[in-house]
Amino acid sequence: MTDKEKKKLDQLFDFCREIDKEKFIGRQTYLTDADRKENDAEHAWHMAIMTLLLSEYSNEKIDVLHTISMLLIHDLVEIDAGDTYAYDEESKKTQADRERRAADRIYGLLPEEQGKKLYDLWTEFEERKTPEAKFARVMDNLQPMMLNAATDGKAWEEHQVKLSQILGRNEHTADGSKLLWEYAYDSFIRPNLDAGRIKDDRKGRERE
Amino acid sequence: MTDKEKKKLDQLFDFCREIDKEKFIGRQTYLTDADRKENDAEHAWHMAIMTLLLSEYSNEKIDVLHTISMLLIHDLVEIDAGDTYAYDEESKKTQADRERRAADRIYGLLPEEQGKKLYDLWTEFEERKTPEAKFARVMDNLQPMMLNAATDGKAWEEHQVKLSQILGRNEHTADGSKLLWEYAYDSFIRPNLDAGRIKDDRKGRERE
Repeated sequence: MTDKEKKKLDQLFDFCREIDKEKFIGRQTYLTDADRKENDAEHAWHMAIMTLLLSEYSNEKIDVLHTISMLLIHDLVEIDAGDTYAYDEESKKTQADRERRAADRIYGLLPEEQGKKLYDLWTEFEERKTPEAKFARVMDNLQPMMLNAATDGKAWEEHQVKLSQILGRNEHTADGSKLLWEYAYDSFIRPNLDAGRIKDDRKGRERE
Repeated sequence: MTDKEKKKLDQLFDFCREIDKEKFIGRQTYLTDADRKENDAEHAWHMAIMTLLLSEYSNEKIDVLHTISMLLIHDLVEIDAGDTYAYDEESKKTQADRERRAADRIYGLLPEEQGKKLYDLWTEFEERKTPEAKFARVMDNLQPMMLNAATDGKAWEEHQVKLSQILGRNEHTADGSKLLWEYAYDSFIRPNLDAGRIKDDRKGRERE
């Protein structure tokens, strides 16, 4: 092994060790035991397998490896920036800035070529323009929604989440997959709305 | 959505909920905080990213998506069969049988086409014949080795692991990547051998 090869491998493995920290970034989603909450690494793994199984439901044809790569790495910025809960409006104001600085540091640990590749994947996910990014966003919304529904809406109840918040967050979900959004609304949202676990704030339906 | 589409999506999401259980399957590897041990889902996520970054070091050209798919799903059998520690010789005797039954049940939850695809990926990993399977095995060995080294050999010391056991487990690692094996030996194994955290059982070197 040449010195150059050794140096590059040192950089790659430094990064591989650093990202271990993603396993300590907690999310608000309960796992199916309705007791422990999941972390970012578990979330990313789950979405990657879901993409393997559900990519055929994308509105547009997608490159599966590209989509999975985006999902595997896009939350690494949270190692520095922390998890921003989907319905925490205060934290969301500073989220973009915090995550941009984190991306500079974390992807910057890599050799230039790989660093650029991962940084570009992260930007693509954030920009939500390509078919792959649109579908990745579907996974990022549906995976926790599926778990929330599987735990009888526990996280929704604890955070007193309103239907309008869920619909706001999912404003673009049908852009990635019309069919999966339809399925998710019928199977995950509607039953929990009917059971009062999601607050129904549609005009004329508010209840206390 | 047709009834047929709905039924297929129900099956796919039943599987996606079921595999949440992999997040509860503990392994023997300490995370970089040297306190909590990792679970199978975290392990799979980590290996998938490592494959994205390290695939160029495979001896033979590999299909990255195929390799990552294998790594993401191959431990699902442990939902039923449990994790078998690499150096637990008793458990390893029944491992193949336990995992085969688990694969039948778990991959059998899926619609036939997807079930077959995942079952075949799992078999391919187990058989270790294709370039992708050989490289996936490199990741499966190097990821915990990297973490063991990062925690000053804590798991090796606790289990009193001998060099011969590590070399036995890594008998085929150089078949997948000669360079990564060389790097791993020099950077992860040798320093811990020198420090006495891995038991040196080479002839004439035994110490107590």
